[in-house]
Amino acid sequence: MSTVRLISDEEAETIPAVREVFDDIRKTRKSDFVNNFWRGLANDPVRLKAIWQQLKEVMVAEGSLDPLTKEMLYIAVSTANGCSYCVHSHAAAARAKGMTDQQYGELLAVIGLAAQTNHLANAMQIPVDPEFDLGRQDR
Amino acid sequence: MSTVRLISDEEAETIPAVREVFDDIRKTRKSDFVNNFWRGLANDPVRLKAIWQQLKEVMVAEGSLDPLTKEMLYIAVSTANGCSYCVHSHAAAARAKGMTDQQYGELLAVIGLAAQTNHLANAMQIPVDPEFDLGRQDR
Amino acid sequence: MSTVRLISDEEAETIPAVREVFDDIRKTRKSDFVNNFWRGLANDPVRLKAIWQQLKEVMVAEGSLDPLTKEMLYIAVSTANGCSYCVHSHAAAARAKGMTDQQYGELLAVIGLAAQTNHLANAMQIPVDPEFDLGRQDR
Amino acid sequence: MSTVRLISDEEAETIPAVREVFDDIRKTRKSDFVNNFWRGLANDPVRLKAIWQQLKEVMVAEGSLDPLTKEMLYIAVSTANGCSYCVHSHAAAARAKGMTDQQYGELLAVIGLAAQTNHLANAMQIPVDPEFDLGRQDR
Amino acid sequence: MSTVRLISDEEAETIPAVREVFDDIRKTRKSDFVNNFWRGLANDPVRLKAIWQQLKEVMVAEGSLDPLTKEMLYIAVSTANGCSYCVHSHAAAARAKGMTDQQYGELLAVIGLAAQTNHLANAMQIPVDPEFDLGRQDR
Amino acid sequence: MSTVRLISDEEAETIPAVREVFDDIRKTRKSDFVNNFWRGLANDPVRLKAIWQQLKEVMVAEGSLDPLTKEMLYIAVSTANGCSYCVHSHAAAARAKGMTDQQYGELLAVIGLAAQTNHLANAMQIPVDPEFDLGRQDR
Repeated sequence: MSTVRLISDEEAETIPAVREVFDDIRKTRKSDFVNNFWRGLANDPVRLKAIWQQLKEVMVAEGSLDPLTKEMLYIAVSTANGCSYCVHSHAAAARAKGMTDQQYGELLAVIGLAAQTNHLANAMQIPVDPEFDLGRQDR
Repeated sequence: MSTVRLISDEEAETIPAVREVFDDIRKTRKSDFVNNFWRGLANDPVRLKAIWQQLKEVMVAEGSLDPLTKEMLYIAVSTANGCSYCVHSHAAAARAKGMTDQQYGELLAVIGLAAQTNHLANAMQIPVDPEFDLGRQDR
Repeated sequence: MSTVRLISDEEAETIPAVREVFDDIRKTRKSDFVNNFWRGLANDPVRLKAIWQQLKEVMVAEGSLDPLTKEMLYIAVSTANGCSYCVHSHAAAARAKGMTDQQYGELLAVIGLAAQTNHLANAMQIPVDPEFDLGRQDR
Repeated sequence: MSTVRLISDEEAETIPAVREVFDDIRKTRKSDFVNNFWRGLANDPVRLKAIWQQLKEVMVAEGSLDPLTKEMLYIAVSTANGCSYCVHSHAAAARAKGMTDQQYGELLAVIGLAAQTNHLANAMQIPVDPEFDLGRQDR
Repeated sequence: MSTVRLISDEEAETIPAVREVFDDIRKTRKSDFVNNFWRGLANDPVRLKAIWQQLKEVMVAEGSLDPLTKEMLYIAVSTANGCSYCVHSHAAAARAKGMTDQQYGELLAVIGLAAQTNHLANAMQIPVDPEFDLGRQDR
Repeated sequence: MSTVRLISDEEAETIPAVREVFDDIRKTRKSDFVNNFWRGLANDPVRLKAIWQQLKEVMVAEGSLDPLTKEMLYIAVSTANGCSYCVHSHAAAARAKGMTDQQYGELLAVIGLAAQTNHLANAMQIPVDPEFDLGRQDR
C-alpha cells in the first residue's frame, strides 16, 4: 500500500522525462532493475530527475569516502529516521558492494551504542564541553 | 543546565568505582581530559562502568571497520537523533582521528541526502521491493 | 497486527459512549466510514471522546487556515514522525479535500528539502542568528 | 531565544482568559510558579486552556498509574523526541514527586537500553512474531 | 522481510555461543519461546550475548522500579522512536506482567500528551526556566 | 558553538564560488542579510551551491502552493525533526511573509494534534484501512 501509484516501465515509455531517468539509472547501475522508490517519485518527473541527480553526485561520484562507507552511513541515518524502505534498499546496496557479515555486525553495534548514548546525553541534558568547539574562529 | 550534577575529579576521588573508570578513560585515550558525558553518568557508577565497557568493545577494540569510519557512523546516528552533545563530541573525535574537510563535507552530503530520501520514502509509503529481502532462508 | 482490538460497529452498539462518538464522526464527515484509528481508541471511551473533540476543534472548525492546508501540515508532521498509518489516512483526506498532483508534488518537495536542511543544520550545530529572535519583549 | 513572546504576569492580568488559567495552574500546583511553557502558550488563550485541561485530566486526575510513574513516562517520551525543555521540566517534576537517585538511574538505564534495541530492531527490520498480536479478535 | 536471516533452533544447536544464550533466555523467562529479535541478533553471537546481558541487568534484575513500570517505559520510548517490533513485543510483555486495560489507557494518554507538548515546546523554542536546573553544584 | 567555522563576508570575498552564492542569496531575497546556515555550508562551496539551488527551486519558484504555506510546512517538519535552528529561521521567514498570530496559533495546534495522534497510532500499531490505498493501479 502506498500514497502514490508506482510508474511501470510501460507507463514510463510514454513520459520522455521519466524514461530518460530510468534509462540513466539502468546505465549507471549496469542493471535492468529500477526499484520502487524511483517508480513512486516518477509521478513528478522534475523531482525524479533532481533527486536522481543529487544521488549520483553524492553516492556515485568519486570522492574521499569509498562507496561502501557511504552505504553504511546511509543505513545509519535511515535506521535512526525509521525508514523501513531505505533500510532494506541500502542494506541490499551495501551487501552488493561487498559488506561482510563482520562489517555489518560492527555497523549494527555502532548504531545501537550511538542510539543509547544519544538518549542518555539527551536525558541528562549534558552541557557541551568547550573543548569540543570546532567552529571557533582561531582554529 | 543539566538534569544531573557533573561529578568533578575531586568528588570522583572519593568514589572508587568512579575513579577507576575515569582512570581507565584517561589511560585508554592517552589524555587527561574526561568529558562531561562521563561526569554525568558517574552519578550511577554501575551504569558508568557498563556504558564505558560497551564503548570500549565497540569503538576502541580492533575490528573490520576503522576507527574513523566508526566515528562518522556515530555522527550520522547522532545527527538523525538530534543529540547536540553527541554531534559535538563525535565531530571532535572524528577530527582527532584525522577526518579531513573533504571527508566531512561528503559525510554531511550523505546525511543530508539520506534524510531527504528517508522522508520521501516515508511520505510515499513505498513498498519494499522483494529483491531487497536479505533475510530469506535460501540465501 | 495491532496492540489493541479494533471495536466493531456491533460492539460499539453495546457501549453508549463509543456509539455516540462513532455517530458524531459519521455525521461530521457525512460518511458511513469509521476508520481503524477510532476503532482502536474506542477501547478507552473517555480518551476516544477527548481526542475526537480535539480533532474537531483543530481540523474541522473554521479558522484562518483552510482545511487542505491543515491536512498537508498533518502529512508533513506524520512523515517526520514516521507514522505510517497517519501518512496514509491524511494523504487520503487531503486528496478528498481536492489536493492536486501538483500540490502533492510540491508538498513532497518541501518535506524532502526541510528534512535535508534540518539534518545539515543539526550536523553543523549552526548557532541561531540573533535576527531570528521573535520572542524578544520589544517586538 | 524563542519564536513567541512569553506572557508576563502583568500582561496576563489584562487578558481574563489567560489570568484564569494561570490562576488555576497556581491553585492546582499549590505554588506561585508558572513556568515558561504556559507563558508561551498564552499567546493563544484558547489553546492554552485546552492543553492545560488535557494535562489536568491526564497527569493530575486520580487513576491507576501513580503520579511519579506518569512523570517518568513523560521523561521517557520527551527524551526520545529530543525536547530539551520537556526533559528539564519533567525531571524537575519527578524529583518534586519524590524520584530517588536510584529510580532516576534505573529510568535512564531503561531509556538507554530501549533506544539501543529500538535501533537494532529497526536496522534488522525484524518481523513481528505472531505470538505478540494483542489485537486479534478472539482474545 | 528482514535484512538478516533469523537463526532457527536447529541452526542454533550448531553454534555453541548462540545455543547458550537461547538456553538462558528460556531459563530466565521460564518459557520455550525465543522471539525473532534474538534470532536476528544471533547472526553476531558476541553482540547477542552482550545485548542479552544488558537486558537482564536492566529489565530482570531487582531494583527500585517494578517490572511492569519498566515495560511501560520501554513502550513509551519505543513508540516515540517508531519501532514497530518493540512496541508489539513490549506491549505483550507488559500484558504478561499484568498491565490492565485501565493502565494501558493511561499509558497511551501520557504518551499522546507528552508528544503533543514536546512538539509545542519545540515549535515555540521555549527557554528552560532556571528553576528547573537540577545539575547545579549547590544542590 | 558549532562543528564548522562560519564563513564571514571577508572570507567569502576570497572564494569566488562562495561569493557568487552569497550574492545570489542577497539578490534573491532583496536583503543584505546572509544567515549562519549558509555561512556554515560555505565550508563546502559545491554543497553550498547545490543546496541553495534546490532551495530556490522548491521555495522561491512559483508553483501551486503559496510561499507562506510552504514556510509553515517547513516549520512543521523542522519541529518534528527537532531542528532548533530551522524552527527559528523558518518562523522568522513565515512572519516576514505575513503569517498572522491566528495562523501561527492554528499551525501550532495542528502540529501538536498530529504529534499526539502519530504517537497514539504508533503505540496501538493501527493497521491501515484498505480504503486509504491511494497507490492502487486502478485509480
